[in-house]
Amino acid sequence: MPTATHAPTVVIENFYPCLEGGRHPIKRIVAEPLTLWCDIFTDGHVVMSAVLKWRLIGAKRWFEAPMTPTENDRWQGTCSFESIGRWEYEVEAWSDTFRGWKKTFAIRVHAKDPDVPVEALEGARLLREASQRARAAGAADCGTQIDDVADLLCSLPPEDVMEVLLSADLQTLMDSYADRSLSTCSEPLKVIVERERARFSAWYEFFPRGAEGRADKHSTFRDCLPRLDDAKAMGFDTIYFPPIHPIGTTARKGKNNTLIAYADDVGSPWAIGAKAGGHRDVEPALGTIDDFVWLVGEANKRGLEIALDFAINCSPDHPYVTDHPDWFYQRPDGSIRYAENPPKKYQDIYPINFHCADWKNLWRELIDVVLFWVDKGVKIFRVDNPHTKPVSFWEELINAVHRKDPSIIFLAEAFTKPKMMQALGKIGFTQSYTYFTWREDKAGLTEYAKELTQGEMRWYYRGNFWPNTPDIHPFYLQNAQASLFRLRAALAATLSSTWGMYAGYELCENAPLPGKEEYLDSEKFQLKNRDYNGPGNIKGFIARLNLIRRENPAMHLYDNLVFHGTNHEQLIAYSKSTPDWTNRLLTIISLNGHTTVAGTVHVDLHALGLDASKPYRVTDLMHGHSYEWHGSDNYVSLNPDGTSMHLFKVEQ
Amino acid sequence: MPTATHAPTVVIENFYPCLEGGRHPIKRIVAEPLTLWCDIFTDGHVVMSAVLKWRLIGAKRWFEAPMTPTENDRWQGTCSFESIGRWEYEVEAWSDTFRGWKKTFAIRVHAKDPDVPVEALEGARLLREASQRARAAGAADCGTQIDDVADLLCSLPPEDVMEVLLSADLQTLMDSYADRSLSTCSEPLKVIVERERARFSAWYEFFPRGAEGRADKHSTFRDCLPRLDDAKAMGFDTIYFPPIHPIGTTARKGKNNTLIAYADDVGSPWAIGAKAGGHRDVEPALGTIDDFVWLVGEANKRGLEIALDFAINCSPDHPYVTDHPDWFYQRPDGSIRYAENPPKKYQDIYPINFHCADWKNLWRELIDVVLFWVDKGVKIFRVDNPHTKPVSFWEELINAVHRKDPSIIFLAEAFTKPKMMQALGKIGFTQSYTYFTWREDKAGLTEYAKELTQGEMRWYYRGNFWPNTPDIHPFYLQNAQASLFRLRAALAATLSSTWGMYAGYELCENAPLPGKEEYLDSEKFQLKNRDYNGPGNIKGFIARLNLIRRENPAMHLYDNLVFHGTNHEQLIAYSKSTPDWTNRLLTIISLNGHTTVAGTVHVDLHALGLDASKPYRVTDLMHGHSYEWHGSDNYVSLNPDGTSMHLFKVEQ
Repeated sequence: MPTATHAPTVVIENFYPCLEGGRHPIKRIVAEPLTLWCDIFTDGHVVMSAVLKWRLIGAKRWFEAPMTPTENDRWQGTCSFESIGRWEYEVEAWSDTFRGWKKTFAIRVHAKDPDVPVEALEGARLLREASQRARAAGAADCGTQIDDVADLLCSLPPEDVMEVLLSADLQTLMDSYADRSLSTCSEPLKVIVERERARFSAWYEFFPRGAEGRADKHSTFRDCLPRLDDAKAMGFDTIYFPPIHPIGTTARKGKNNTLIAYADDVGSPWAIGAKAGGHRDVEPALGTIDDFVWLVGEANKRGLEIALDFAINCSPDHPYVTDHPDWFYQRPDGSIRYAENPPKKYQDIYPINFHCADWKNLWRELIDVVLFWVDKGVKIFRVDNPHTKPVSFWEELINAVHRKDPSIIFLAEAFTKPKMMQALGKIGFTQSYTYFTWREDKAGLTEYAKELTQGEMRWYYRGNFWPNTPDIHPFYLQNAQASLFRLRAALAATLSSTWGMYAGYELCENAPLPGKEEYLDSEKFQLKNRDYNGPGNIKGFIARLNLIRRENPAMHLYDNLVFHGTNHEQLIAYSKSTPDWTNRLLTIISLNGHTTVAGTVHVDLHALGLDASKPYRVTDLMHGHSYEWHGSDNYVSLNPDGTSMHLFKVEQ
Repeated sequence: MPTATHAPTVVIENFYPCLEGGRHPIKRIVAEPLTLWCDIFTDGHVVMSAVLKWRLIGAKRWFEAPMTPTENDRWQGTCSFESIGRWEYEVEAWSDTFRGWKKTFAIRVHAKDPDVPVEALEGARLLREASQRARAAGAADCGTQIDDVADLLCSLPPEDVMEVLLSADLQTLMDSYADRSLSTCSEPLKVIVERERARFSAWYEFFPRGAEGRADKHSTFRDCLPRLDDAKAMGFDTIYFPPIHPIGTTARKGKNNTLIAYADDVGSPWAIGAKAGGHRDVEPALGTIDDFVWLVGEANKRGLEIALDFAINCSPDHPYVTDHPDWFYQRPDGSIRYAENPPKKYQDIYPINFHCADWKNLWRELIDVVLFWVDKGVKIFRVDNPHTKPVSFWEELINAVHRKDPSIIFLAEAFTKPKMMQALGKIGFTQSYTYFTWREDKAGLTEYAKELTQGEMRWYYRGNFWPNTPDIHPFYLQNAQASLFRLRAALAATLSSTWGMYAGYELCENAPLPGKEEYLDSEKFQLKNRDYNGPGNIKGFIARLNLIRRENPAMHLYDNLVFHGTNHEQLIAYSKSTPDWTNRLLTIISLNGHTTVAGTVHVDLHALGLDASKPYRVTDLMHGHSYEWHGSDNYVSLNPDGTSMHLFKVEQ
C-alpha cells in the first residue's frame, strides 16, 4: 500500500518539454519564459485546478502560476526563472471542491432542486474552511470577506447570493486559499538557468602566442591588448584562447603537423604538459599566471570575457605521467599507450583512462583544474573533444562546477555523430559546435537550422555557428574570395544567436593544406606572420554584423528563427522577432558568392506579426536603404560585390 | 561523486517502446516477441557490444540476447517471456575490448606496424583473461581453447594467426566470456506478461437471472447451463455476468430506470448491497456461493471462463454504509451523498470516498473483495466505470491481485475521455472497452483501429470491441435489420483479437428506449421474455465468425492489422497475418447493410507477404468459395442478404 498521507488523486503526465522522462534538464536564460504542457485529469466529474510551481533546487519557497486547460485534458502554464542556477519545476493539481460545488449549486438553484438548502450549508462549510486557511496564513481580512459570503449563504435565499458567489473577486480569494489537502504533485523536472551570454555571444578565437602576428616572435599575454581591442571593435564579446599551458617537447609535432620538430618549433598547444607543469600552469613563453589574470582583468574592463580551452590531453612530459601513471593506459611492455586511430598515431598525446581504478581521484583532479581557472577569473570554457571522454564524466564535472559557480559556460567542441553531440548538450553543456560549417546550400542550411532551433534540440542544445576553426578550414572557403567569407559570416551571425570565428577569417586567409580541410602553415604548429589590418579584410563587415546583433533584441534569442520562401535556389530568407513584435529582423542572403541573384521573397507575414492589409517598411541595417513593401511577395536583387545581403528591420 | 564501482561508461537511452520514461509497463503475452530499440554509444573510437536482458521481477537469473546496431547509434534486440507475471528488461552495453583489439590488430598487421609484437601480447592478455572467466564459470574446455589461441599469438608470426583470430568460432567463445567489468546497464523497464486470453477472447454477456429468458421467473445459477452451452456453441470463451451480489431495496429503480419500484421489480444488479450482504455475497434469488462455484466449475469443464463484474457501487442498504459510514461522502445534514451528475440523480447508489481518512483500510477491503472471488475460481473481472475511481487505486489493486495471481484479467469498462481510457490501460488493465461502438463509417473505423493497433497504444491498451452492451444500444442498431447486426459483429470479431456482445444481440433485439442509446425494457431493471432460439437469429453467423477466429492464428494477434485500399466508400478491407506468413486472412466487408456494393480492392501484396509476380488463392472461410487472384486490384461484390462479407484465407 502507498505510505503517503493520501494516494495520488490526479494523473499528471505526458510533459512537454521533457527529456528522457525527466532524466535530463532543459535550459533557459534568466527571465526567459518556459511554457509547459502536460495532461492533467482525474476520476469522476470534478472541476480541476492546477498550478505550475518552480524553485531553485534546495530552496524552500516555490514560485507558482496558475495553469489553464487547453483541450483533450491538456493543460499549460508558463514560468520564468529569476536567477541563474539549477531549478526544478513541478505541477500541482487538485479537484477544486469549491469550484465544483459552485458549478453544481448554480444548476441546482436554477432547477429548484429540493437539496438546495443542504447544499447551501455544504458551500458555507467550504467557504469557512477557506476562511480558516486564510486566517492561518495571516490574511484575517480575507478570512472575514469569505466568512461574510458564508453567512449570506446561510441566511439569504440562494437566488440572492448567486451574484456574489459567482463573482470573480470571490473566486480569486478562494483560489488563494484553495483546499489543496488532496492535491497531487508531479515528479519535479530540472532546468539549468543561465546568464544571457549562454545564449547570445560572439566568439573570437586567437592564439595568444600569435597576438602580434609575428613569425619571429612568440607573443605573451602582455602583448594581447591590441588583439582584444580589435576584437572588441569587431563587436565580439568572448575571446577564446587555445590551451595556454606548458607544451610538451617529447614527440613534439613540427610545422604542418610533421613528425619532426626543430629547436624553434613551438609545438601544438593541445600537447599539454612539460617540465614547467601541467593543466594548472601556463606556458612560460606566454608569461605567468599573474600575467594571465591581468589580461582577464583587462578583457573584463572592455566588456569582454576570456574563454579558456579545457583539453584533457597529456603530452608524454605531463606531470600526471610520472605522478599518476595509473591514470593512463599501460601496454604489455610497460610503456604508456599514446593516442591513435589506426593507422593514424598521435605520439605526442597520451589519452587518459577515465575508468582506471583510481578514477574518483582522477575525476576530482580534473574538476579541480577547472575550478582552479574559475578562481583565476575564467567563466567560459571551450571543451576540447568532449566526445572522446565519458559523457558521465562531463555530467559530473559540469554539475560540480555549477554547484560552485552556476555562471560558468561550457562550449562542447564535439564534431562527431549526432547522438553523442545531443547527449553532451543534454547532460549540461551550455553551447555546442555544430555541422553548420558543412551546411552550404539552401536546403541543407534550412533543414539543419530548423532541426536545431525548432525541434526538441532547442530545449537543451544551443548551436554555436563557426565558419572556421584552427582545425577546420572548410573546402568551401579554400582559396575563396572575400564575398564567400562575408557570406558564411553573415549566415553564422544571423542564423544563430551565438557564433564565432577563428582569427585570420576576417583577413580571408584561404590557403589550405592540400587535400585536407586544414590551414596551410597552421598556427597550431607554428608562429606566423599576419597583418591584422591587411588589405581586403572584412573587419568592417563583421563589426556591422555584430553591432546589428547587439542592438536588436530579436537576434539575442535562439529559437525564434522562421524561414521564408523564395523563388530562387540561392536566395535564403529568414526572420527573427521578439515575442512582442517590437523588434523584427528579416535576413535575405544570396548564397551565390560570384554573380548577382535576383528573385522574389515570399514573406510569411503572419510569422512576422504583420497585418497583411497594410504596407510595411523594411530598412536594411547593413546598407541603410529603406523600402515600403506590400503583401507577401517582394523582389530583391543581391550581388556579391555590393549588397550581398539584406538585413532588414521590419516595421509596420 | 558517483559511488558505484565505476561510473557509467556507455550512454543507453531513447528506448522504444517506453511509456512515460519507464513509469508504466508495456504488455506482452507469453512467448510473444518484444523487439526493443534504443540508442547506445560511448566516447572514443571503440567497438561496442550490447545485450538485452530480461527476468521475472524478483528472480535472480537474467535471460539474455545479443543486440545489433542498425543506424545512427540505434540498436535493437528481441526477447520473449516464458511465463506470466511482472517482468523487467534492461540493456547492458560495454566497450568490447577484444573486438576492438582484433580490429586494430588486423590493420596493424596489414600495415606492418612495428608495434605488432607488443600488440600481440596485448591480445594474448585479453584472451587469457577471457580464459580465466571461462574457467571461473566452469567451462574449462572453453578456457583451454582460448588459451591455445593466446599461445599461438605469442609464438607464431601474426600473419599465421589471423585466420583463427578472425574466426567466428573464436568470437563466439569470446562473446560468451566477454569482459563486462566496465559495462553499463540501463534502468530496468517493466512488462506485464499475460496469458493468451488477455489478447484473444470472445465474450458473451448475460444476466444469470435471465438465463431462461422468462419474465415470470428469476433464473438461478443452477439454471444457467443451457446458456453456457449455447454460448459455447456460438464460439465464445468468456462468459461475463453483471454483478451477482444482493441488490438493494432502498430507492430501488423500477422498469426502464423509473424512480418507483414495485414489489416484483428485481432492481439493477449494479445497486449492490442489501440485508443479504455486500460484495462478498450473492443475491439470494440467484442461489448461493456454492451454486456459483459449481457453475464456474461447469463452465471450466466446457473450456469457458466466467468473468465477474467488479462494480464499486453501494446501495443505501450495503453493509459498508452502516459499518463504515466514513467511507462515503457526508452531507452537512448528516446524510450520505448519493451519486449524481446534476441535474441527474442516482439515489440508489452511494459513491465511495476513495480519499477518506480511512482510505488504506478501504482500499485493502476492496482488493480483498477481488481476491475473495479469485479464491472462488474467478480469473476475469470486468470493472465497472473505473474512470470514476482513482487511477492510483486501480494500479494498486491490479498490482496486489497480480502479486497473488498474475493470471487474473481485468477489462476496463471506461467510456470516457481518451486520456483517462489510456491511463487505465497504462496502469495495468488487461483489456479496455473502446469507441468502436460509435465508429461506423470506413474513415472512422480505419483511423480508430489504426490508432489502437498501430500507434503507441498497442503497447498497453488492448481494445475489446463490443457492438452492444446492456448500457448501450447504439442508434445505428436501433430498429435495424439483421444485416446490420451481422455487419457490426463481423467488424468487431475481425478487427480486434478480442470482442464481445451482450445477449440478445444474436437475436437482433433492436427496440430502443425512445431517444436514448438504451434498450427498451432493459434487463438491467427487469426480467424479460426472450426466445434464445427465436426466428431471425444470427447465431450461426456468429458461431462461424468465432470458429474462424479460433482456427486461424493470425486472428489471435492484436497489432497485426493492416488496411487495404478499396475504390468504394462503403467497402472496407483489412488483413491479419502471422509473422511467418503461414496464416493470412483478408477481410472485406460492405458497410452498406441495405444494398449491394461492388468495387475493387487494392490488395497490399507486400503487407500480405505475397509475390506480386504470382497468382494467389483466396478462400472465403465464411462461404467456402475460392478464387484465384492476380496482382493488387481485384473485384468484389457484396450484398447484405447473402454474402455481405468475405473472410478470405490467402495462400500462395
